[in-house]
Amino acid sequence: MTGQTDLAYADELDAHDPLAHFRERFIITDSNLIYMDGNSLGRLPRAAVPLAEELIQQQWGERLIRSWNEGWFTAPERVGAKIARLIGADPDEVIVADSTSVNLFKLVVAALRSQHGRSRVLTDNLNFPSDLYVLQGAIGLLEKQHYLDVVPSSDDIHGPVAELQARLDQQTALLTLSHTVFKSGYAYDMSAMTAAANGAGALVLWDLSHSVGSIPVDLHAAQADLAIGCTYKYLNGGPGAPAFLYIRRDLQDILRNPIAGWMGQRNLFDFELEYRPTKGLRHFLTGTYPVVSLSLIESGVDLLLEAGMNNLRAKSLRQSEYLINLWEEYLKPLDFTLNSPREADRRGSHVSLGHVEGLRIDQALIHEMNVLPDFRPPDTIRLGIAPLYTSYRDIHTAVTRLQKIVAERMYEKYSRQAPVVR
Amino acid sequence: MTGQTDLAYADELDAHDPLAHFRERFIITDSNLIYMDGNSLGRLPRAAVPLAEELIQQQWGERLIRSWNEGWFTAPERVGAKIARLIGADPDEVIVADSTSVNLFKLVVAALRSQHGRSRVLTDNLNFPSDLYVLQGAIGLLEKQHYLDVVPSSDDIHGPVAELQARLDQQTALLTLSHTVFKSGYAYDMSAMTAAANGAGALVLWDLSHSVGSIPVDLHAAQADLAIGCTYKYLNGGPGAPAFLYIRRDLQDILRNPIAGWMGQRNLFDFELEYRPTKGLRHFLTGTYPVVSLSLIESGVDLLLEAGMNNLRAKSLRQSEYLINLWEEYLKPLDFTLNSPREADRRGSHVSLGHVEGLRIDQALIHEMNVLPDFRPPDTIRLGIAPLYTSYRDIHTAVTRLQKIVAERMYEKYSRQAPVVR
Repeated sequence: MTGQTDLAYADELDAHDPLAHFRERFIITDSNLIYMDGNSLGRLPRAAVPLAEELIQQQWGERLIRSWNEGWFTAPERVGAKIARLIGADPDEVIVADSTSVNLFKLVVAALRSQHGRSRVLTDNLNFPSDLYVLQGAIGLLEKQHYLDVVPSSDDIHGPVAELQARLDQQTALLTLSHTVFKSGYAYDMSAMTAAANGAGALVLWDLSHSVGSIPVDLHAAQADLAIGCTYKYLNGGPGAPAFLYIRRDLQDILRNPIAGWMGQRNLFDFELEYRPTKGLRHFLTGTYPVVSLSLIESGVDLLLEAGMNNLRAKSLRQSEYLINLWEEYLKPLDFTLNSPREADRRGSHVSLGHVEGLRIDQALIHEMNVLPDFRPPDTIRLGIAPLYTSYRDIHTAVTRLQKIVAERMYEKYSRQAPVVR
Repeated sequence: MTGQTDLAYADELDAHDPLAHFRERFIITDSNLIYMDGNSLGRLPRAAVPLAEELIQQQWGERLIRSWNEGWFTAPERVGAKIARLIGADPDEVIVADSTSVNLFKLVVAALRSQHGRSRVLTDNLNFPSDLYVLQGAIGLLEKQHYLDVVPSSDDIHGPVAELQARLDQQTALLTLSHTVFKSGYAYDMSAMTAAANGAGALVLWDLSHSVGSIPVDLHAAQADLAIGCTYKYLNGGPGAPAFLYIRRDLQDILRNPIAGWMGQRNLFDFELEYRPTKGLRHFLTGTYPVVSLSLIESGVDLLLEAGMNNLRAKSLRQSEYLINLWEEYLKPLDFTLNSPREADRRGSHVSLGHVEGLRIDQALIHEMNVLPDFRPPDTIRLGIAPLYTSYRDIHTAVTRLQKIVAERMYEKYSRQAPVVR
């Protein structure tokens, strides 16, 4: 008889997985590698290889400058419109260019300048540090008319929902949160938080970097104002691929891009000396974007659209639930803690496990066991589930290799001062 | 006997060109295409094709997240150090990431915040419009403590040197200019202008987009403070490839990046909640950069380093002189004007020709004659010379095809309202 924590059961789950065939749509060269870091860098879609060839050899090499009129000029909107379908936005509400942090800067500065007389910028300590740095920099630039209020989580796992809601008042200009937080994978209730903020007259900006492609997001249903997100994690867009930004349509011509540039200019080929922003979202572009990295995003997004976000979410939840069951059986007895929400509806697509020897275990996992997770200090090993290509067997193998490392104390030869690898 | 404006003479010049063999280092599929737009988008270096394969298939596909520790983290400095050798900077003074406009924003804001009590930002009307937009946006953001003083050129060809120098005073915070201006190709005397500005206590920021890879630049000799530049023109870095920024070493820890982000954080894997910029240039990075587009820059820069900037400049000058001779013989009689400096030492690597029917001639050139120049309103056809791959025969052919279009009035079927193609 098969127990639910046996490898045979994992294979059974894979055999009945309706999305299993999507794994073949990715280039996977090392079948022994267990890749649990799709939440940091998604795998290479098979379709990206001929697309890259086409971009470089035909579009750049042969068509040269003509390619600007044959697709490059519209690429930020074309890719944006596809991402829009994953996050419940209209096609003309999402555009791709620059990094997540630069996009955040643009939107935060634009939002704060539109919110006269309100000084509080509200966030939590589970947000990406980079987002906090951008907020600190933006506030410093705006002559310190604002201050950053970073509400702490009580358990470092769950978002401080009640505390945030209590601070939403007439002084609050902006609430900005990671929808799915990067350490624990906790996911906020977007509708509830947005309604609370908007009710107090504050704008809301969601960082969707750990949500897009892993959780169905419905920005319209939540009546969200602003959002940003990353394309190289669950979207499989390629290393450091440009990020997206979302502005609800009625705000697009109210907010002003602080980093005004040529790509946002009306009739840009008139080369006028005065900046006159074009209507709609495009004036939130600044300079020329990296065409190759931007265009490659499309292959990954296409796969997610084909699989369907609801199907992906269903699989992701089954897989994270399965991982938690395996943790209970194999890892909890070895003093691993579950640092992610137990509640399925508050959980993104990665599971974080804590261990006092986390950093050394992480090293052993990478260097001896051919498992790639990532590590977040002080003690957390993140196991990312990318339902397009993560198999139940991957999850089972990752857990049993973790068990072996601790049971056999294989981590002891690694240093507690090892540099963290990304 | 061969006349100096015959095609046979062009072939003779090519036969004796010591750099002619570099043309084979580029992918050139259409031998009939005359590409005179390397100043907008450089050609595809042959070496970029296997590099792209390696980046996508091995680094992304196989090594996955591990590639961050195997070269991606250091790519901004690695590529920057190579560009530094082209512009007379030290390796640790140039870094690559973000677009030219975003880099300009960072440096302008940082510069203005460091220059207490000085309100004037000085530039000219030959500067890139995008640079003016960035300046307008940055000044608006800094609570209008500054104003932009745009000095006009008297002939739209030459920089208003004396007028700029006259306005350099104790009120001037920053002088910022395109070193080589995008329409006429006029190149400022960097040392003289920098000395004048620094003498008045102003900082200087050079936009090198049309200079890098086409003119030897010596930032150290000129004692320049700040610079930015583009990598997809004469550097052949690929469409929209990320830009570089230069900060003289002694200013690196004085200036503060207004778009603070994770990539500039000290010990970024500690994930601290407070921004603490790392020392040196790297804190002028913000978010994660587009690795594929950034890494591809290296192939083009390597070719320039191999050829040598002085050799390239010598050829470029011979070629622009040659083009001007051909203009005199073939085009001046057909009412083309020379809209570039006649003086060799003030000329970059493109030659601009004006004609009252410029836009229609440009259309005919592209669609009937397989010549790709670019057009800048109201009447200017720019012919870019990229000495790594432009041949004398290319130049001769471009000019004689231009002549034919006008002599045979082939442009008449095109509209005066045609959209400008990039």
